[in-house]
Amino acid sequence: MFRVITLQQAHERIHELWKNPKTKWVKVEEGLGKVLAGEVRARVDFPPFDRAAMDGYAVRAVDTFDADEENPVELKNLGLVRAGESSNKIVRKGTCLRIETGAPMPKGSDAVVPVEFTDGEGFVKVYRSIAVGENVIKKGSRLRKGGKIAEEYQEITPDLVGILAAGGVERVKVFVPPKVGILSTGNELVPLGKRISKGKIFDVNGPMLSSAVKELGCEVTFLGIAHDKPDALKAKIEEGLRNCDVLIVTGGTSAGIGDLLPSSISPIFHGLATKPGKPTLFAMVKGKPVFGLPGNPLSAFFIFRELVAPHLLRMSGRRLRQETVEATLSVDLTSERGREEFIPVRLHRQKGRIEAEPIRMGSDAITVLRLADGYIDVPLEVERMRAGERVKVKLLARR
Amino acid sequence: MFRVITLQQAHERIHELWKNPKTKWVKVEEGLGKVLAGEVRARVDFPPFDRAAMDGYAVRAVDTFDADEENPVELKNLGLVRAGESSNKIVRKGTCLRIETGAPMPKGSDAVVPVEFTDGEGFVKVYRSIAVGENVIKKGSRLRKGGKIAEEYQEITPDLVGILAAGGVERVKVFVPPKVGILSTGNELVPLGKRISKGKIFDVNGPMLSSAVKELGCEVTFLGIAHDKPDALKAKIEEGLRNCDVLIVTGGTSAGIGDLLPSSISPIFHGLATKPGKPTLFAMVKGKPVFGLPGNPLSAFFIFRELVAPHLLRMSGRRLRQETVEATLSVDLTSERGREEFIPVRLHRQKGRIEAEPIRMGSDAITVLRLADGYIDVPLEVERMRAGERVKVKLLARR
Repeated sequence: MFRVITLQQAHERIHELWKNPKTKWVKVEEGLGKVLAGEVRARVDFPPFDRAAMDGYAVRAVDTFDADEENPVELKNLGLVRAGESSNKIVRKGTCLRIETGAPMPKGSDAVVPVEFTDGEGFVKVYRSIAVGENVIKKGSRLRKGGKIAEEYQEITPDLVGILAAGGVERVKVFVPPKVGILSTGNELVPLGKRISKGKIFDVNGPMLSSAVKELGCEVTFLGIAHDKPDALKAKIEEGLRNCDVLIVTGGTSAGIGDLLPSSISPIFHGLATKPGKPTLFAMVKGKPVFGLPGNPLSAFFIFRELVAPHLLRMSGRRLRQETVEATLSVDLTSERGREEFIPVRLHRQKGRIEAEPIRMGSDAITVLRLADGYIDVPLEVERMRAGERVKVKLLARR
Repeated sequence: MFRVITLQQAHERIHELWKNPKTKWVKVEEGLGKVLAGEVRARVDFPPFDRAAMDGYAVRAVDTFDADEENPVELKNLGLVRAGESSNKIVRKGTCLRIETGAPMPKGSDAVVPVEFTDGEGFVKVYRSIAVGENVIKKGSRLRKGGKIAEEYQEITPDLVGILAAGGVERVKVFVPPKVGILSTGNELVPLGKRISKGKIFDVNGPMLSSAVKELGCEVTFLGIAHDKPDALKAKIEEGLRNCDVLIVTGGTSAGIGDLLPSSISPIFHGLATKPGKPTLFAMVKGKPVFGLPGNPLSAFFIFRELVAPHLLRMSGRRLRQETVEATLSVDLTSERGREEFIPVRLHRQKGRIEAEPIRMGSDAITVLRLADGYIDVPLEVERMRAGERVKVKLLARR
């Protein structure tokens, strides 16, 4: 019925055929969560001038060397430099300037005496000696103009936004996550909010996969539900390909009477050595990738996660970060030889160890995930696992 | 200068004064990442009828009990039931109906023989005996109408979207993350993209905090940069409060000549026993919370994270999930007694242990986060930590 290939082989084929991520320039403020498509260098020194780190008096440090609490030094105050302004006054021997935090150091000065170690205003008594450079942030000491701020493939986090702003970087080149079209197929499907008559069920894959795609930072277009008519299906696929970079079609991929997808497109592969997910297909149509996922929601969920998501992330400049936890299998388990199996598990924490309890149900049973904390991925060649064996559990996000 | 309170006390005050999260009803498809403001129950059985789990023939199991590979049973095929349709044919003794995966079981039938164990079309040879209920998904077996699907405070993940859809749930009540207004203040600030003249620097806090707020799932309005004029500042604060649920103002909170915020609003507290972040203030203005954060970007970053973010999350129905890692301090450390200190650290993994190297810089030095993997939080009463001590490192998201 299918000439199955392994998940690994499927990834290799997709990798060969779906290349060249898109990039664009965006404002730094709009870059959150995107990934840099090139290293970034500072456009200005940060700070762009020598700056006072505290409110106080800009002085020549040498003038304060004899000062202490008993013997204050008296300096003539030439005025005030506010933050955002600059002064053309020059601090010479025996003088000082009142200065605000962040204001540029006036010429001649090389240190700031904090206001709390001073007294008076016109003539200022300084009760402490201060070292050259004290309470001064030197020009370019935090970032040097032209110095590297960030690497290609770095994700833009709020603190990186701050650092980019400090370096005067207004725009950055980022990877553009693919636009994903999602199409549900099946005569039995009805969209949420409509009435279901006998034989009909609500479309689960449409909303579920739309959310899963959005969660990865991709734009999503839900193309609706196509019924099992070749023309309608073809029209929807063409519509999707006009506006999207990639299509995900669910249902219509197995070998049933009404399963039309394989005959509507020419698959690169049709059949995956996984359980669930065997009737999965992949095609390139007009140069764009089309994934055909099983209609059973639990199958669609696993195949999206294991087959599709890594490529959506790759095209966004990212890699999948799958959190895992080591656990002990609670019961013996058999698995079909020759198929990589995804088995939902529930975790039980007890006495400092974690036990994984498999919860198996039919591949329609998306509801099983309500009970699951994650799943184990049983390799192709494994037929049997024993209670007490160590397994790696891929965690589902739960908050 | 300040009557400082501890971070813990500050949280308690804010908690008392800022209450009653907002909720609204949204379509399930639009709920991703939001948090449920009430439990959710299934509106329909899932599946809503007894369904074929495979392509095959709907039969009375009892008719197949004698069948095996040598002695097939022959059943008269009454027709076809497609997915999405239903048949009024009744399966009586000696008959069967061709059935597609997902189609409703016709009356009289109680099991499905997979097509691969059959032969013929008009009269169908069945080569296997089958048990009652085999390859049938019973009505309501996955979800029972009225049964609980999800709990209050559960975050809407893609798989929950799928489960909600299966249960016919079209709309859910969710917490509405607060709308946050952000205002930068300081005469020295210039927005990114503009030229900086002498004494000016780029506004870092505006874009950084806007991104940090967005990352938490809140809507953000950047109100721009207010210069240090009381009227302009007041006008901006009023504008912000008209459209937002909470304001974050940076700069203008310390005791400098140009620091106007405390006199523009009446703080509930002004002064935090933290380092950095001492000149932090909090006020309720027209019933809405206003946070005054220090202008120094590193201070603003830490105070946003430690003081503001937990409340934005709380009002969104969430809790902060701070990933931490245990590490060994690489050097001796002193910390100011009476102030809780946040110290960025870089992690070094070697020989199976993780070492945390403190990287201290001025509180302006947002750039230090470029090198940091996380930070340690040195309690108020600790003055000294020794190289080799175990510390808990709060991780910054890095991908």
